[in-house]
Amino acid sequence: MPRFPAFSLQLPEWVDALLPDPDQVYPTLEDRMRLVIELSRRNVLMGTGGPFGAAIFALDSGKLLAPGVNLVVPSHCSVAHAETVALMIAQPLVGTFDLAAPGLPPYQLVASTEPCAMCFGAVPWSGVRSLVCGARDEDARAIGFDEGPKMSNWAAALEKRGIQVVRDILREDAAAVLRHYAQVGPIYNPGRS
Amino acid sequence: MPRFPAFSLQLPEWVDALLPDPDQVYPTLEDRMRLVIELSRRNVLMGTGGPFGAAIFALDSGKLLAPGVNLVVPSHCSVAHAETVALMIAQPLVGTFDLAAPGLPPYQLVASTEPCAMCFGAVPWSGVRSLVCGARDEDARAIGFDEGPKMSNWAAALEKRGIQVVRDILREDAAAVLRHYAQVGPIYNPGRS
Repeated sequence: MPRFPAFSLQLPEWVDALLPDPDQVYPTLEDRMRLVIELSRRNVLMGTGGPFGAAIFALDSGKLLAPGVNLVVPSHCSVAHAETVALMIAQPLVGTFDLAAPGLPPYQLVASTEPCAMCFGAVPWSGVRSLVCGARDEDARAIGFDEGPKMSNWAAALEKRGIQVVRDILREDAAAVLRHYAQVGPIYNPGRS
Repeated sequence: MPRFPAFSLQLPEWVDALLPDPDQVYPTLEDRMRLVIELSRRNVLMGTGGPFGAAIFALDSGKLLAPGVNLVVPSHCSVAHAETVALMIAQPLVGTFDLAAPGLPPYQLVASTEPCAMCFGAVPWSGVRSLVCGARDEDARAIGFDEGPKMSNWAAALEKRGIQVVRDILREDAAAVLRHYAQVGPIYNPGRS
């Protein structure tokens, strides 16, 4: 065994079962958010991670490129938020770190909750052209999750870089998953576990 | 093959060869930074990624837990910065996403360049108690790398969360690697490749 084993991240098995049709499209923002909220809901239900889902869609066609769920606890990795997981699955599928590379359609990141400080910073590197959010960060804070040291004008900072930000899509449905999770825990901020 | 293959991240083979002694300790901040700058330098020399190195050390003993190098291009993943790679290798080695978990010694993240917006946001989730930086973010910007939408008082924001920030350790040596890289490229900001 090498001194430093490879890091490996696998989506839970139920994700493949939830998405049997590779040609399915999600035409509206609500369709896309509904899938992402379902990912967050099932992640809690199946005990495979925290109450957060995300996915990368082709912006125009609504075809799913890759889903993501929060895998912080099972992967032993604080970086494995739903958004970063979606990127780590999506980018190798198209063979480049840059979802805005020539020859690719424009892509959109849809997240069940507004990004934490890390995921906010990850968005500009990813090449996505658009970020769509369900629950507000205050909904995550309300159940005890820390969103990190994020600038108050984070959405404007992304817009300034040409990344469209759409908020409050099915916010109540997304926040309901957070509130349910608050009953079953754990809230896993570092240094408090 | 599953529809969504696992994401796998492996350190380049030369890393193991560079670190033959698992018991070696790095007593001073300069010792630790020297290793991290060597990681950044070799990553360029060997063509395995961008000019950034990082590592997690036990804060008091200076024992290396895990190194990291920028693997954005070879891993097809915009998240694979040196700091996040070091975390993705380190945390599974201790079996928890939280480097401040009970029973663990305090850990320190040493980075050859000050963190970008994403890696800044990743630091509070990691459980490290201390962040040590070599080159300044303006040194990275000077060769065309984008550090992202980062708050100007980022170091104070970490200190406020109990994370010590130490800057300018061997800054010139670290910046020299960046300047050398500027000759050999590529500078891989998204949407410009």
